[in-house]
Amino acid sequence: MAYDKAAVRQLLDRVRADKRTALTAPEGKLVCDAYGIPVPQEGVATSAAEAGKLAQQMGGPVVLKIVSPDILHKTEAGGVLVGVKTPDDAVKGYDTILANAKKYKADAKIVGVQVQQMLGGGQEVIVGAVTDGSFGKLVAFGLGGVLVEVLKDITFRLAPATQNDALSMLDGIQAAEMLKGVRGGEPVNREALASLIVRVSELVNDFPEISELDLNPVFATAKGATAADVRIVCDFEPKEQRYRPSQQEIVTAMNRIMKPKAVAVIGASSEDGKIGNSVMKNLINGGYKGQILPIHPKADEILGYKAYKSVKDVPGEIDVAVFAIPAKLVAGALVECGEKKIPGAVLIPSGFAETGNHEGQKEIQDIGRKYNVRLMGPNIYGFYYTHSNLCATFCTAYDVKGSAALSSQSGGIGMAIIGFSRSAKMGVSAIVGLGNKSDIDEDDLLTFFEQDDNTQVIAQHCEDLKDGRAFAEVAKRVSKKKPVIVLKAGRTSAGAKAASSHTGALAGNDKIYEDVLAQSGVIRARSLRDLLDFARGVPVLPTPQGENVVIITGAGGSGVLLSDACVDNNLKLMAMPADLDAAFRKFIPPFGAAGNPVDITGGEPPTTYKNTVKLGLSDPRIHSLILGYWHTIITPPMVFAKLIVEVKQEMEAQGIRKPMVASLAGDVQVEEAAEYLYQHGVPAYAYSTEIPVAVLGAKYKWARGAGLL
Amino acid sequence: MAYDKAAVRQLLDRVRADKRTALTAPEGKLVCDAYGIPVPQEGVATSAAEAGKLAQQMGGPVVLKIVSPDILHKTEAGGVLVGVKTPDDAVKGYDTILANAKKYKADAKIVGVQVQQMLGGGQEVIVGAVTDGSFGKLVAFGLGGVLVEVLKDITFRLAPATQNDALSMLDGIQAAEMLKGVRGGEPVNREALASLIVRVSELVNDFPEISELDLNPVFATAKGATAADVRIVCDFEPKEQRYRPSQQEIVTAMNRIMKPKAVAVIGASSEDGKIGNSVMKNLINGGYKGQILPIHPKADEILGYKAYKSVKDVPGEIDVAVFAIPAKLVAGALVECGEKKIPGAVLIPSGFAETGNHEGQKEIQDIGRKYNVRLMGPNIYGFYYTHSNLCATFCTAYDVKGSAALSSQSGGIGMAIIGFSRSAKMGVSAIVGLGNKSDIDEDDLLTFFEQDDNTQVIAQHCEDLKDGRAFAEVAKRVSKKKPVIVLKAGRTSAGAKAASSHTGALAGNDKIYEDVLAQSGVIRARSLRDLLDFARGVPVLPTPQGENVVIITGAGGSGVLLSDACVDNNLKLMAMPADLDAAFRKFIPPFGAAGNPVDITGGEPPTTYKNTVKLGLSDPRIHSLILGYWHTIITPPMVFAKLIVEVKQEMEAQGIRKPMVASLAGDVQVEEAAEYLYQHGVPAYAYSTEIPVAVLGAKYKWARGAGLL
Repeated sequence: MAYDKAAVRQLLDRVRADKRTALTAPEGKLVCDAYGIPVPQEGVATSAAEAGKLAQQMGGPVVLKIVSPDILHKTEAGGVLVGVKTPDDAVKGYDTILANAKKYKADAKIVGVQVQQMLGGGQEVIVGAVTDGSFGKLVAFGLGGVLVEVLKDITFRLAPATQNDALSMLDGIQAAEMLKGVRGGEPVNREALASLIVRVSELVNDFPEISELDLNPVFATAKGATAADVRIVCDFEPKEQRYRPSQQEIVTAMNRIMKPKAVAVIGASSEDGKIGNSVMKNLINGGYKGQILPIHPKADEILGYKAYKSVKDVPGEIDVAVFAIPAKLVAGALVECGEKKIPGAVLIPSGFAETGNHEGQKEIQDIGRKYNVRLMGPNIYGFYYTHSNLCATFCTAYDVKGSAALSSQSGGIGMAIIGFSRSAKMGVSAIVGLGNKSDIDEDDLLTFFEQDDNTQVIAQHCEDLKDGRAFAEVAKRVSKKKPVIVLKAGRTSAGAKAASSHTGALAGNDKIYEDVLAQSGVIRARSLRDLLDFARGVPVLPTPQGENVVIITGAGGSGVLLSDACVDNNLKLMAMPADLDAAFRKFIPPFGAAGNPVDITGGEPPTTYKNTVKLGLSDPRIHSLILGYWHTIITPPMVFAKLIVEVKQEMEAQGIRKPMVASLAGDVQVEEAAEYLYQHGVPAYAYSTEIPVAVLGAKYKWARGAGLL
Repeated sequence: MAYDKAAVRQLLDRVRADKRTALTAPEGKLVCDAYGIPVPQEGVATSAAEAGKLAQQMGGPVVLKIVSPDILHKTEAGGVLVGVKTPDDAVKGYDTILANAKKYKADAKIVGVQVQQMLGGGQEVIVGAVTDGSFGKLVAFGLGGVLVEVLKDITFRLAPATQNDALSMLDGIQAAEMLKGVRGGEPVNREALASLIVRVSELVNDFPEISELDLNPVFATAKGATAADVRIVCDFEPKEQRYRPSQQEIVTAMNRIMKPKAVAVIGASSEDGKIGNSVMKNLINGGYKGQILPIHPKADEILGYKAYKSVKDVPGEIDVAVFAIPAKLVAGALVECGEKKIPGAVLIPSGFAETGNHEGQKEIQDIGRKYNVRLMGPNIYGFYYTHSNLCATFCTAYDVKGSAALSSQSGGIGMAIIGFSRSAKMGVSAIVGLGNKSDIDEDDLLTFFEQDDNTQVIAQHCEDLKDGRAFAEVAKRVSKKKPVIVLKAGRTSAGAKAASSHTGALAGNDKIYEDVLAQSGVIRARSLRDLLDFARGVPVLPTPQGENVVIITGAGGSGVLLSDACVDNNLKLMAMPADLDAAFRKFIPPFGAAGNPVDITGGEPPTTYKNTVKLGLSDPRIHSLILGYWHTIITPPMVFAKLIVEVKQEMEAQGIRKPMVASLAGDVQVEEAAEYLYQHGVPAYAYSTEIPVAVLGAKYKWARGAGLL
């Protein structure tokens, strides 16, 4: 769209020169005009007679509003009259408003009274823009009044927003139905309303000094959308930008850090129980094949490896230095790393921002920037990269190779990841601690894992995003290729408070996280178990080719709960075509129920499961299967599990791959069967109808976001 | 309250005699007057002049409305004029309305035009009453307009409702804040509005023929609440009441069924794989000590037990008969049970209502009623009562005694209960299959378990409630003594459809279930795992003595997620008093954080956990503890688990018992530690921050509902 940017530039420069931050109504209108944001006809009267004349020209009823740089809250000042019907009333209204304004603030500078065409009808909505500490410019949309104020029914997108983003906002509020016309009202013009949102988003993107913008109300009708009132506030002292290297720089540095040829351990120790000792042992016992270089002021050798007094004494190149020294020694050692041109430092030590030592953290950040050393941490457990057999951490070693890359802001959550992975036999490519995120953060990891062939899914726990905008931009790109799952801790007020005292995280407005993560194609986990179950299950499932989900169950009761779970997880139960219904019925007893769920009933032999699942996999109209198993003597758990895997493999030999998950109801033997199914590509859970469906739902959410459905 | 019931009786009798179902507006007003429901001043004019006179008397603006038994939708007919300002306007309005009515329906009988004082200001709300198939009379409350229509922001209670029920409705809607005054508005008079709700609920309770009632809108102001419009619809052919025995009758019969001295197995068999064989084996191998009486037309002996051709041939009394014969033979055998005066029949066979055979089910219901035989099922797996060593089922035997009584409408879910119980080492008192619920249902079980000393918690899976009102009444009483947990399947439209095809269940309006279950003190589980985890964890925890919850964690990251989970589960994180804060700080490193969560930091020795947990248990201001453990070399998992149990037991010796749950983050060894903690009274979960808090939340929900907090 062609905007008159020069006009806005000129206007904002004038506001700045005037040392003002708020725009007047006529200035707001000028800005709207420059960006093609429809506003009512209007003019400013400087006399009562002129007000009458303007009202005459506009025809219908008008609104009168005081224009004064000294009066921001016009209604409060008695500076607004609505529904002024005749030109005569406008003349009288002018005088009333001036009298009110003088009473409110005797010395207020009065420019005049704005006469504005009065809008009405349609649906009143609010379009606005805000500046978030992490995500920067966001555009907001909601219905007016109680819905926004009391129910907080509002939705956000990163600015600039596309027309599709904007259209998704219209469906993104609880009261979305209101825009489709209720009580016989006409539906609003969606394209016009979305276009207005896009224009607002581009305006605030083009002019970052606009810190807040409110169009309230906007009248959205079947014909168009017109902003009745505009409020614009500027901030001419924008915050410092967080340093962001280029994608190529990130990839180069991260590849050396994650797949190093030589690792230095600063503070390596021979003494059991020391962190520097644990790190050394994990590197050695983890089977790392590169060079291990202990650094110690006095030792000549540690655990059989030649030790150096400084990284600068090491003859060859070093790719990454793991720090296991007290906080106060970090800065000095980091300078040496810089001088040695080591691209990455893994800062295990705590005692920085999380304890209030912001200066200390700033100091190491500055050193990192000066020497171009990327910093992981501080206040972390380190990291694992299994495909390099690398355990650069003081925690338990972990070496089960797989395709899930996980990270956590917190050490405790990192340990939970390791425990769950080992328990569930979940292979991982990497587990990374990010702690205070003085430098390396979630988007650096995304950028690395995006091009890492060993990684197929990325799951991240975070308490905040230091640069939400950078994260969202990278996530949007990466999630098109690989599923990105995020557990955002500090969702609630109590959680945010705890996060702030834990890592100094600013947990932010959760609704913004919710909307922007969705806009970026990120799968949001609601709980730690969800994060872990999704990380385990999502890469196991093939990508669905369509939305049609069918439940095949031996337990009717499971079928009901699985159906509930489908709705909860936004999965579509296929409406069963008559011929397919008949085909299923051939395999099941007459008192079973076809339809969807296909209820094969509980007492059936293995062949019934086999025939129905085979049909489900082979019919091209069905895209995914959810299986409900009921433990019986006739079809014991392992018999069921093995035959499902057999059918699956038979179909795969014919080139048919569909997502399939299973819920197993039965005695403890179903646990072994679930494990067997999982190991063979069917995420399966004992005693749960909700988790397998949630895993399938996560896969669908990703596929939709990536545009694959 | 004193109501003029005679007036309403007379009026409704007249409506019935007129063969009408809808009341006119003046009739509606009379009903309101009789029950003290405030309505505006009004009168009916039969001439334009009279309309003018009435308007004159009322003073302010009026509303004019057509009065005609033939015009129900008055607005549609052009039969309503609002905001009629002067008596002159009322005169003109009368004529307009009459003209419109004639145009709408030429032959409509016109009684006149109602002139009504026009209300305004305050908050518009809706109060109504509906008749639900399962719950009977319900009173409903919501704000008007979009909130009810689009957002379905409405809340229900069983009628009659108490003043407290009604007050809870005012807080039970999403937009509750609106009633407290927003945008400078005055808060509504809560007592007056609640009183109006109570009156409506008592009206529909007193007169069951009132099937629908709507007061819409009701103007709720700071002074009072006045119904501007009333709509009442009657149904003079109410549905048949479901048979309900007295509480004493239920207890007597259920005690014989659940703790029988003699069990007959109708269709007992020596042949492996037959249901009658499985039932016999389970009775024998389960260790049942009473008489086992196989019934078989030909056999003399089955599995070493003397067999009889009919129950009537058995010399002594029989307490319960387990049916393992085809559906078509059930009725005949049931008559024999009746003649033998057996109080209970366990009907395993399927082939009744769930397959569309409603006649067959009606037949056995009638036999049951005729002979006073209580029926469990049909279409069930049977039941277990462990304290009698009784496995009256064809499923796997289960004999781990404990205090949780579980039931399921579905066999598959029953098997999941058994598997989970065995896997989690959860002792149960009973597991019962209810299937088609032709007779015995959830409230019979509640009534039995209420007085069963072996049972401390009752957890039920259901797809519908055949008599929701009876259930709610019993649950309200029982939940005061023992926690009642319900997983209602068929929550969603897809789930309800599946339930209907599964057991013919009418899943009903889920919002009604939600509200009425809450009103009855029931803990609602949202998933199968929740049902199982709550059944396991809730009886383990002592009853909290207050709302103050404190998190003590070694993992700051867990602290954040645990805080989020507290908000999700409606738990109150205690605001830490300064002296207590200081007391905690004494035990933790300077960089740890007191406050709440108490973050003791990750590298601490066992003494730090010990000291802080001891302080948490001993300070009387703290009522519950949530522990977050982080696996380290310094405090390994089992060391942590044992010391927590030690501290707990030490405190118990001093008479201090507080609920305590734990979230364990670490390598796989935390699973053993969690198990140990659970077995010693601390519900603990590995790799999850949300489940332990949900379990504590369930305990709190129960304690609040039971009036213990």
